[in-house]
Amino acid sequence: MKGNEFGEIFRIMTFGESHGKAMGVVIDGCPAGLSISREEIQAELDRRKPGQSAITTQRQESDRVEILSGIFENTTLGTPIALLIPNKDQQSKDYSHIKDAFRPSHADFTYQEKYGLRDYRGGGRASARETVGRVAAGVLAKKLLMQAMPIQLNAYVSSVSNVKLSKPYQSLDFSKIDSNIVRCPDLETAEQMIAIIEEARDNGDSLGGTITCVVQGCTVGLGSPVFDKLEAQLAKAMLSIPAVKGFEIGSGFGGTQMKGSEHNDVFEKGVDGIRTKTNFSGGVQGGISNGMDIYFRVAFKPTATIMQKQDSVNAKGESISLEAKGRHDPCVLPRAVPIVEAMTALVLADLYLQNKLSKI
Amino acid sequence: MKGNEFGEIFRIMTFGESHGKAMGVVIDGCPAGLSISREEIQAELDRRKPGQSAITTQRQESDRVEILSGIFENTTLGTPIALLIPNKDQQSKDYSHIKDAFRPSHADFTYQEKYGLRDYRGGGRASARETVGRVAAGVLAKKLLMQAMPIQLNAYVSSVSNVKLSKPYQSLDFSKIDSNIVRCPDLETAEQMIAIIEEARDNGDSLGGTITCVVQGCTVGLGSPVFDKLEAQLAKAMLSIPAVKGFEIGSGFGGTQMKGSEHNDVFEKGVDGIRTKTNFSGGVQGGISNGMDIYFRVAFKPTATIMQKQDSVNAKGESISLEAKGRHDPCVLPRAVPIVEAMTALVLADLYLQNKLSKI
Amino acid sequence: MKGNEFGEIFRIMTFGESHGKAMGVVIDGCPAGLSISREEIQAELDRRKPGQSAITTQRQESDRVEILSGIFENTTLGTPIALLIPNKDQQSKDYSHIKDAFRPSHADFTYQEKYGLRDYRGGGRASARETVGRVAAGVLAKKLLMQAMPIQLNAYVSSVSNVKLSKPYQSLDFSKIDSNIVRCPDLETAEQMIAIIEEARDNGDSLGGTITCVVQGCTVGLGSPVFDKLEAQLAKAMLSIPAVKGFEIGSGFGGTQMKGSEHNDVFEKGVDGIRTKTNFSGGVQGGISNGMDIYFRVAFKPTATIMQKQDSVNAKGESISLEAKGRHDPCVLPRAVPIVEAMTALVLADLYLQNKLSKI
Amino acid sequence: MKGNEFGEIFRIMTFGESHGKAMGVVIDGCPAGLSISREEIQAELDRRKPGQSAITTQRQESDRVEILSGIFENTTLGTPIALLIPNKDQQSKDYSHIKDAFRPSHADFTYQEKYGLRDYRGGGRASARETVGRVAAGVLAKKLLMQAMPIQLNAYVSSVSNVKLSKPYQSLDFSKIDSNIVRCPDLETAEQMIAIIEEARDNGDSLGGTITCVVQGCTVGLGSPVFDKLEAQLAKAMLSIPAVKGFEIGSGFGGTQMKGSEHNDVFEKGVDGIRTKTNFSGGVQGGISNGMDIYFRVAFKPTATIMQKQDSVNAKGESISLEAKGRHDPCVLPRAVPIVEAMTALVLADLYLQNKLSKI
Repeated sequence: MKGNEFGEIFRIMTFGESHGKAMGVVIDGCPAGLSISREEIQAELDRRKPGQSAITTQRQESDRVEILSGIFENTTLGTPIALLIPNKDQQSKDYSHIKDAFRPSHADFTYQEKYGLRDYRGGGRASARETVGRVAAGVLAKKLLMQAMPIQLNAYVSSVSNVKLSKPYQSLDFSKIDSNIVRCPDLETAEQMIAIIEEARDNGDSLGGTITCVVQGCTVGLGSPVFDKLEAQLAKAMLSIPAVKGFEIGSGFGGTQMKGSEHNDVFEKGVDGIRTKTNFSGGVQGGISNGMDIYFRVAFKPTATIMQKQDSVNAKGESISLEAKGRHDPCVLPRAVPIVEAMTALVLADLYLQNKLSKI
Repeated sequence: MKGNEFGEIFRIMTFGESHGKAMGVVIDGCPAGLSISREEIQAELDRRKPGQSAITTQRQESDRVEILSGIFENTTLGTPIALLIPNKDQQSKDYSHIKDAFRPSHADFTYQEKYGLRDYRGGGRASARETVGRVAAGVLAKKLLMQAMPIQLNAYVSSVSNVKLSKPYQSLDFSKIDSNIVRCPDLETAEQMIAIIEEARDNGDSLGGTITCVVQGCTVGLGSPVFDKLEAQLAKAMLSIPAVKGFEIGSGFGGTQMKGSEHNDVFEKGVDGIRTKTNFSGGVQGGISNGMDIYFRVAFKPTATIMQKQDSVNAKGESISLEAKGRHDPCVLPRAVPIVEAMTALVLADLYLQNKLSKI
Repeated sequence: MKGNEFGEIFRIMTFGESHGKAMGVVIDGCPAGLSISREEIQAELDRRKPGQSAITTQRQESDRVEILSGIFENTTLGTPIALLIPNKDQQSKDYSHIKDAFRPSHADFTYQEKYGLRDYRGGGRASARETVGRVAAGVLAKKLLMQAMPIQLNAYVSSVSNVKLSKPYQSLDFSKIDSNIVRCPDLETAEQMIAIIEEARDNGDSLGGTITCVVQGCTVGLGSPVFDKLEAQLAKAMLSIPAVKGFEIGSGFGGTQMKGSEHNDVFEKGVDGIRTKTNFSGGVQGGISNGMDIYFRVAFKPTATIMQKQDSVNAKGESISLEAKGRHDPCVLPRAVPIVEAMTALVLADLYLQNKLSKI
Repeated sequence: MKGNEFGEIFRIMTFGESHGKAMGVVIDGCPAGLSISREEIQAELDRRKPGQSAITTQRQESDRVEILSGIFENTTLGTPIALLIPNKDQQSKDYSHIKDAFRPSHADFTYQEKYGLRDYRGGGRASARETVGRVAAGVLAKKLLMQAMPIQLNAYVSSVSNVKLSKPYQSLDFSKIDSNIVRCPDLETAEQMIAIIEEARDNGDSLGGTITCVVQGCTVGLGSPVFDKLEAQLAKAMLSIPAVKGFEIGSGFGGTQMKGSEHNDVFEKGVDGIRTKTNFSGGVQGGISNGMDIYFRVAFKPTATIMQKQDSVNAKGESISLEAKGRHDPCVLPRAVPIVEAMTALVLADLYLQNKLSKI
């Protein structure tokens, strides 16, 4: 029943339907004394907003965030931080043609069955628009982490359909991620990705892909043993993002083919303390960060909304034919990069605060 | 801080260190009136217990479960169900030689750093022995589901190292899963798996692999939108199992290379109601079960404990050489099958109860 | 850390500082399909709003509620219901004179110590203005209860200072509660209460008193054994209201002087099932409602804000003299009646939903 | 559904029916590194155990606590601490005569209605025996507080029926509390209390009374604004104890007759920092401890079990006559003193840990 909340200590609750009055988020558990401005939050929302480029949806939404509470004189008060992002023109259209239709691979059918009704004007809570509150909250999470440790948190598009960036993350220049519209730090690969996305868009089709996320400079000790292992929380966070179908950390699925004698990360004494020679574990052992880079990969299915005629049924079970209107993302991955980063920051901020209480 | 708990309504809390007095689990939120016997719980523990076969650890533990509370005259009371599994001979040995050693890819280092001390006699809470409580609790979860829907829940070993069972799950006979010691329903593949595990064991090495889990007959409506999506809860559940490094549901990582027009699951009217022609979604849309089969795959790294000499450091950062003693699993996958099933049942039972409150 | 949330299933989270942009509440866990209009919520807020009468504060705030999400076509969607109540003119004044002052018996000092800073323009989260969100949420809770059982929930002012309504609640006409400005159903007592409040107001002083709450028609079974007993949840709910210093249910403090043979409520067979002859238990046994009337009493201290010069210290510990400006309630009890009712409804709605899961 | 758990960070879950195999408690969220021995826990259980004196029940139970997990070499590991207290001879008797009977003012009826069945051998979870786990957990809570602040926590019996200890707590010698069997620090009053309890016992009757609890040396800042105010958590904690019907803090119900000008606690600069001249607030302002003494009073009804014949009904609604067998407490207050102390320590330990995260 707490499906709209995420986190234990640093905790967010999002609200809002895609075609209702506003989207919002309440952040609770953020300590007092953190400096934050509206502009910092806005800047990250601008990375997620629609209409950024030729390969994202052309809907123009300003996504302007408003601070309702919890921040006073640009400093957190220790009280709930409510952020609001109004929706535009949400009630002007006629939605009667889609009122009873179940769009393929959307949540129309499951919501209708679960709740007995739904806001048929759009995806409601299942819309990726819901993630705007997560991105806003992620800014505070990231600032909290940055005042506590020399953390660097970077996500990037590592594949689109069958175009893959195969270079190891260590060889990439993360400062180039936002230099291109697909958010891939390797410019040559980025161009190929853009080309196939444009082709899919022109065909009214859509593409999937993967995002890789790398966390550097994370302190040792984040993660709660057993059920709230760092990797378990990350997996949940990632699979909670619309369209995500897979998650792997460290050696992941590939590592299942290694032998223990190859895979074990041997400890050694480094200049900054104990570290491991290899890092197949992906920065996590026993569910707790070990000070090495945390890296993981997230699989996104192709966007369900396509500009082609599709068969489906309506609420009565009658066969219908559907065609999407408006403008949609042929590939969600570029805009999903800040979402992956935000969710990662939210997981780490929560575990960072939890870890402060692990010893007397 | 709630890392020892799992679930919101049907909720478990496990306790116990691998070398302490006992392992245990408290199940809270199980409705009153469910019939259950000690023997039913014991039967499932026997599937997980060590020493079952030549390819699992030869340690002989009886893992006998004791019901302390919450069950009266073989029926649940609606009160917390406490189950205890005593550890054997836990204090008889001399552990001084490993007191300060950090075993590669184990949690010794991270626990020591996080807590400032640890039960150095074994893996403590990081030991896979902790999962005994999960398996016990899973029996109740599964019984609850079975009285509510025609559910069938089967997990099996789908790959060991590079030996893969490539047949689709629809073509498998799940009744064969327990017919062989590796728990692969395809007997030919099972033999190959057993052969490479025995080879690894003889070399003092270990292997990883994947487990596939298939849920059939699940009703529509399980899963909470946004953060507690069914797939997000499953991902968390699986990544909370020791040695798991990846999770994918439905089309998973492979689906990232499909186009939207190929991947979308078209609705049609079936005999039992609305269903989808294909099932790339893996039985989940918008985070909610849609009545189709739920299937997912879990990646296990090779066991960290190997019977070879390994370099490491101790708590002072001094170089040491380590060699495991005793008997260990060269491949954890066969014994992990009931754990995957138990965690799946726990997720579904919790979401089933939550779903009862979604409409007035 | 969850101090801004109340409830387990039917759950609210309030946000907003008294002098910030807006107060708000998010209600999560309300089932889909409950019919509710903005006007129904507004009507209850009007019972709580300032400036209602000569004996409440003369500040004029419209307290107009806005529905942001979760309600579509006057029906709950099963998604989070966000309600916003904007604050008026919150930044127009000069607050420098109170920036460092600690008002006696207010939360200025404790908030400053706990958080290192505070919104010094007013009481922040400690202001009774925070309760506006609770009252709004209480409307939904009450509607949920009313569709499930023949519940009647009435609170009234049972004493102001030493003027007490000594008649048993059974002899009162609850329809008269809102017929007078002090919300006491006995009109003669109400007049006496009004007279002493006016006298206190004219002296720049304030008064305390008690509110009695009676719940009739509650079904058997609400309340969770052990820590979440119905009376424990009510006690927490009441003590969470600003200025409350005491709670007693059933025979309460007076019952401590009875003997067991007098106090025990003997069961008998009534026309509607098993009931008790007496009701010293106050409708609750073992923490669970037994179908009899639930009645309890809540103690409010005199309002801390008085129109008299008071000594205090500032943040540096220097002696200062303070005098309140503006218009304040000389007695909070009349406006606290809808707050007590709202919190009671929130407790019962939550326990009602929980109880639906107690049996298979 | 979390009615068997208490606390957010420092958290306990109790389990066990009074006539089942064992009572137990799992403490989670206790930081690693706290030194604790089994004997320290046992000593406090001995203060609660039955059969201590002529005025408590003569049942002889050893209530021997066993540590199952979470404590290693007399130090907490940061993992769940499971404590077990076996019940004695729980299945030897014939309970058929009470199987269907509803004892007056017990929880038999409400449990039966809520769950459809119950452990009819005794009170099950509603039995005061459940509190044994709370007392055990309270020892750890108190130790945690003591290593953090110069806290002193004392509860005592302040009235039994109409015999009241009217002296202010400041004039009492708390070291005398355990010097007499009724746990009243004023020996003259104690004698009178003992006399009337003995009289009630001889008449087969029972008495109620009040317990006062005083916390000295608590640091500023404990308590979460809004719903988890310190006084709200204390109220919930106290009302969760069997037989409690009322709670008041600071001036309490009596304070409702004071004027604001009399009741306000004026701040002044003391030697140790800012303090208040008076303390009608009871050490709490805005829900947060202010460094002054926290004091509150708890009302206990007379014990429901009496040695007299009583009318009642059985599950079929038929009239029956009941008479208690065995030995029972004619007055629970002496044995409730350690329970009140334990619950107070649990509330404060939890809020102490929470408060560590209030500022960056």
